[in-house]
Amino acid sequence: MSTNRTVAVVMGSDSDWPVMKEAADALAEFGLEPEVDVISAHRMPQDMIAFGQEAAGRGIGVIIAGAGGAAHLPGMLAAVTPLPVIGVPVPLKHLDGMDSLLSIVQMPAGVPVATVSVGGARNAGLLAVRILAAGADDGAAALREKMVTFQEGLRQAALDKGA
Amino acid sequence: MSTNRTVAVVMGSDSDWPVMKEAADALAEFGLEPEVDVISAHRMPQDMIAFGQEAAGRGIGVIIAGAGGAAHLPGMLAAVTPLPVIGVPVPLKHLDGMDSLLSIVQMPAGVPVATVSVGGARNAGLLAVRILAAGADDGAAALREKMVTFQEGLRQAALDKGA
Amino acid sequence: MSTNRTVAVVMGSDSDWPVMKEAADALAEFGLEPEVDVISAHRMPQDMIAFGQEAAGRGIGVIIAGAGGAAHLPGMLAAVTPLPVIGVPVPLKHLDGMDSLLSIVQMPAGVPVATVSVGGARNAGLLAVRILAAGADDGAAALREKMVTFQEGLRQAALDKGA
Amino acid sequence: MSTNRTVAVVMGSDSDWPVMKEAADALAEFGLEPEVDVISAHRMPQDMIAFGQEAAGRGIGVIIAGAGGAAHLPGMLAAVTPLPVIGVPVPLKHLDGMDSLLSIVQMPAGVPVATVSVGGARNAGLLAVRILAAGADDGAAALREKMVTFQEGLRQAALDKGA
Amino acid sequence: MSTNRTVAVVMGSDSDWPVMKEAADALAEFGLEPEVDVISAHRMPQDMIAFGQEAAGRGIGVIIAGAGGAAHLPGMLAAVTPLPVIGVPVPLKHLDGMDSLLSIVQMPAGVPVATVSVGGARNAGLLAVRILAAGADDGAAALREKMVTFQEGLRQAALDKGA
Amino acid sequence: MSTNRTVAVVMGSDSDWPVMKEAADALAEFGLEPEVDVISAHRMPQDMIAFGQEAAGRGIGVIIAGAGGAAHLPGMLAAVTPLPVIGVPVPLKHLDGMDSLLSIVQMPAGVPVATVSVGGARNAGLLAVRILAAGADDGAAALREKMVTFQEGLRQAALDKGA
Amino acid sequence: MSTNRTVAVVMGSDSDWPVMKEAADALAEFGLEPEVDVISAHRMPQDMIAFGQEAAGRGIGVIIAGAGGAAHLPGMLAAVTPLPVIGVPVPLKHLDGMDSLLSIVQMPAGVPVATVSVGGARNAGLLAVRILAAGADDGAAALREKMVTFQEGLRQAALDKGA
Amino acid sequence: MSTNRTVAVVMGSDSDWPVMKEAADALAEFGLEPEVDVISAHRMPQDMIAFGQEAAGRGIGVIIAGAGGAAHLPGMLAAVTPLPVIGVPVPLKHLDGMDSLLSIVQMPAGVPVATVSVGGARNAGLLAVRILAAGADDGAAALREKMVTFQEGLRQAALDKGA
Repeated sequence: MSTNRTVAVVMGSDSDWPVMKEAADALAEFGLEPEVDVISAHRMPQDMIAFGQEAAGRGIGVIIAGAGGAAHLPGMLAAVTPLPVIGVPVPLKHLDGMDSLLSIVQMPAGVPVATVSVGGARNAGLLAVRILAAGADDGAAALREKMVTFQEGLRQAALDKGA
Repeated sequence: MSTNRTVAVVMGSDSDWPVMKEAADALAEFGLEPEVDVISAHRMPQDMIAFGQEAAGRGIGVIIAGAGGAAHLPGMLAAVTPLPVIGVPVPLKHLDGMDSLLSIVQMPAGVPVATVSVGGARNAGLLAVRILAAGADDGAAALREKMVTFQEGLRQAALDKGA
Repeated sequence: MSTNRTVAVVMGSDSDWPVMKEAADALAEFGLEPEVDVISAHRMPQDMIAFGQEAAGRGIGVIIAGAGGAAHLPGMLAAVTPLPVIGVPVPLKHLDGMDSLLSIVQMPAGVPVATVSVGGARNAGLLAVRILAAGADDGAAALREKMVTFQEGLRQAALDKGA
Repeated sequence: MSTNRTVAVVMGSDSDWPVMKEAADALAEFGLEPEVDVISAHRMPQDMIAFGQEAAGRGIGVIIAGAGGAAHLPGMLAAVTPLPVIGVPVPLKHLDGMDSLLSIVQMPAGVPVATVSVGGARNAGLLAVRILAAGADDGAAALREKMVTFQEGLRQAALDKGA
Repeated sequence: MSTNRTVAVVMGSDSDWPVMKEAADALAEFGLEPEVDVISAHRMPQDMIAFGQEAAGRGIGVIIAGAGGAAHLPGMLAAVTPLPVIGVPVPLKHLDGMDSLLSIVQMPAGVPVATVSVGGARNAGLLAVRILAAGADDGAAALREKMVTFQEGLRQAALDKGA
Repeated sequence: MSTNRTVAVVMGSDSDWPVMKEAADALAEFGLEPEVDVISAHRMPQDMIAFGQEAAGRGIGVIIAGAGGAAHLPGMLAAVTPLPVIGVPVPLKHLDGMDSLLSIVQMPAGVPVATVSVGGARNAGLLAVRILAAGADDGAAALREKMVTFQEGLRQAALDKGA
Repeated sequence: MSTNRTVAVVMGSDSDWPVMKEAADALAEFGLEPEVDVISAHRMPQDMIAFGQEAAGRGIGVIIAGAGGAAHLPGMLAAVTPLPVIGVPVPLKHLDGMDSLLSIVQMPAGVPVATVSVGGARNAGLLAVRILAAGADDGAAALREKMVTFQEGLRQAALDKGA
Repeated sequence: MSTNRTVAVVMGSDSDWPVMKEAADALAEFGLEPEVDVISAHRMPQDMIAFGQEAAGRGIGVIIAGAGGAAHLPGMLAAVTPLPVIGVPVPLKHLDGMDSLLSIVQMPAGVPVATVSVGGARNAGLLAVRILAAGADDGAAALREKMVTFQEGLRQAALDKGA
């Protein structure tokens, strides 16, 4: 069952945590407790490579990676794992995240990164849930039901605001 | 097993096919035969809603949606399905796909779209494979092995070019 | 006469209200009381479709729709109504509304959205007045006169400032 | 009845005609024959002002104005008429229409221009139809019916392509 | 002599004054007292046209025009006067003046606007001085000498800071 | 009289000539024969400085400078002459002239460059005419009359196209 | 002496060679024969890491790395070598190299990449020469003399064109 | 040995110092004391030229130059010295440093500037260290060892944060 596959939430710097925390929070709403770590592509490249290579074997099913500026972490992890990698462009002091977005989303053919919006860590968490819920097993089906319920909640909250 | 969950490749216009065909081709390299269709958010909105709502129940596991300009198809499908939706920004005659990219990737919190690069349909196909391979069952594990082999092939091809 | 056709002001989130309120205020200056509602394309897609489909039949003449980021509400409403839809790009935390603008204005051929400036809700209200005033009936002619008077007021105010 | 209000299609240069012709074609599909003219804000400013001031009195109901670069025609016409003005950003040799788009859409509060996409003259024509169809009279209702039929045609064409 | 030709500093809104004041200040440093006025292309188009048409005859030698967003004032004035018009892109709440800049600088062939930087009103004033100093008469020569002295002052101030 | 002050048209590379030739052509339409030269800020900086320093003394009244990419020529010339310098952003192979535009127009306070549109050399020539025509002497007045006639010609040509 | 330190020219794909060849050509003009290789950060990440780690020990003094899109090669090499790394943004089919530029230049504090212009491989080669010429030894001094001579050649060529 | 070659840190205005100070700080961490000065390309062009021409002869090995807006200082210095010049795009009040970046990085072939990120003065300092460490002499080798140690420190700090 899919419940024995976990989600990793990693980021290039601990200063990214205020943004990336929302990914962990979204996962928690679905009863998923992610593994969280600071892994820098530029300051600890070999540790980063090792993390990526070992992730699937350690039972991780999806990697969420946030980074800013010349954001190389999501793409480099995608290069060393067969797992789906979700990239979160973290906005830095200048350029409002446009550099982060393009550095993550414009990956060359062969190595995809599932990119979400600038600062969109909550959606990264929800996308990880959808990915774990896409499987053919019963655990995935149960998670998919939870997502349907979640979406009904979104609708109800929006309806309430419009009332 | 995951092999009975398929991938849908849809696009807003048949003029998107030259771009989107690469998603289908990538899936075929992994032995996956996608369901392909033209579904326009703007010209057939109710059919689009119906398609999204029924997708999970019909055995679809991942939806790849390509659209250009004010590209609403990926986000609207993500709104009506619990499945992961991969968005491909199709470049149109003007603005070089920047409008397509922002219209797809900048989704509000609650409804994620896994966005790939402008014109990056091949990566959308490969991302769908990774998603199907992320499951806990044997079918997913087999697909994950194929992805590892594919990545080794990428490396070998690059090494050969550099020789 | 045109006075029995009303204007709807809708927005994707109640957080858009501080921006969108200016549309309602502008309409009020012309004696028009809009119908105001929160309608999210992404969180309540079917309700949104239903709203759009029923609008013309309910006596609505113009729809003003504000949304931010991957802003799909104006375009989706335009897809399900024959009424003119005015789109207001609401600026969000990042990218200063450029994503909102492109997501609204770059609609494909067949489904137009009358787009105003980033955050330009007041102009959306004034454009709705002009549209209702474009008709051939007496009510429209009266509204057109009011718009001429309004424009004279703009001139006088500008002259006063320059004095 | 609304049939005695016509649409004017004007442009800053006759070199804009290949783009703007699509507005006239769209109107023709709805049985509307627009008045077409070259009116330059920069080369014949007083004639432009006069055109705008006289338009409503001459029975024009909607003005479609196309211009490129520092595109001032739509905004200046909107300044001198109470009619709704639709702006079409015409892409020139450089900057791919982004300058045209911003010059048209970013109008100050008080003077709205209903902006369509870069090069989106066909949608300008369709928007003019929707505006004429927004009235309370029988002519408008008939035009609205035609728009509904047109939208059904869009759906059928899209369905046929996807079959 | 050139001293009997004055500079006009105009702006689309009195809210532009904090930016445009620097143009007047720069002129004052050269002993030139500009005529200052609020002239809106969009709210008082005919007054604006009249101002432009009469400027040269009234002894004005250079017009400095500041405007923001879809900034049409500099270009429209340039269309109705043979005088050199200097355009100052005033940054507004959104898009950081990029819309103002493109709306002013991208003028079509035939009608030039001498554009300075976003918010660069001080340079607009200095450019007006250079223009008045470009003449063949003695007044111009005297003003040119003042500009040379001014530039030496810039150098000295910079040297002092680096000391 | 102003006729003894000439215009210099300089450019960073002879590859800019196809663009810059239009400045010379515009000047020729007004009976002005410019001095034309290739002067590179980056490849012959000292010659460039010398050219700028000597320009006013040699009877030059206005300098038109075209350059592309990191376009430093107009700004550097403006730093060493009290004359008005008109900058023409020449579009290069990449970025469509946006880099050239920003490198020329965004000058710091103290050293203005009168910037025209991307590739807008014809307008640079016309702006130089307006500057020479801004003087208080008879030659300037005569040139101003020619500009008025030129503008009437623009109007007539536009009217003819619209007929 | 510096002559026993070589330059490596690497690129993410052999399709980058038409751009990157100019770096090798520039080096050849200074009598330097670079080591050239295809090294992909995404397709052969471990080989890339190994290349970077071993470069300094193998006698390489400067690394020139070209890549396009989400261009991670220059930054990742800079992370694993103490050598100066020059990044060349290679323009791809979409976005005209802006994504490549931002992905290379916006590196986080700690790991610099010396970035040149979009497609600016010739300048990358010349920058490598300057770097090798910056040393304190005789070989560096000789190379510096060659650069001075080269710059004189640039001047002479520009002067000849302007003659 | 390389220790007798120093680094110059110059900037166009003393208002750039809060940004540029980080370059000096980074150099100090490696025991290098830079020469710091305010040198404006636009306000003291001849002094700037003289500085650049004399730098190599005075024992300077690398020049770090920061400037904002139409940032011409790095490129102009690179034009008059054979030394490597590192450009730091300083963000100003508008456009968030994008103008500074393009004005510095998009240099024409022949005259390279080693550009770092917007506001990236710390990386400019570290790049200067790498350049001085690229030589063949013992001093360079010692500096290279320090850089390796520095990089190990980056890794350790990142690991500690992730613990």
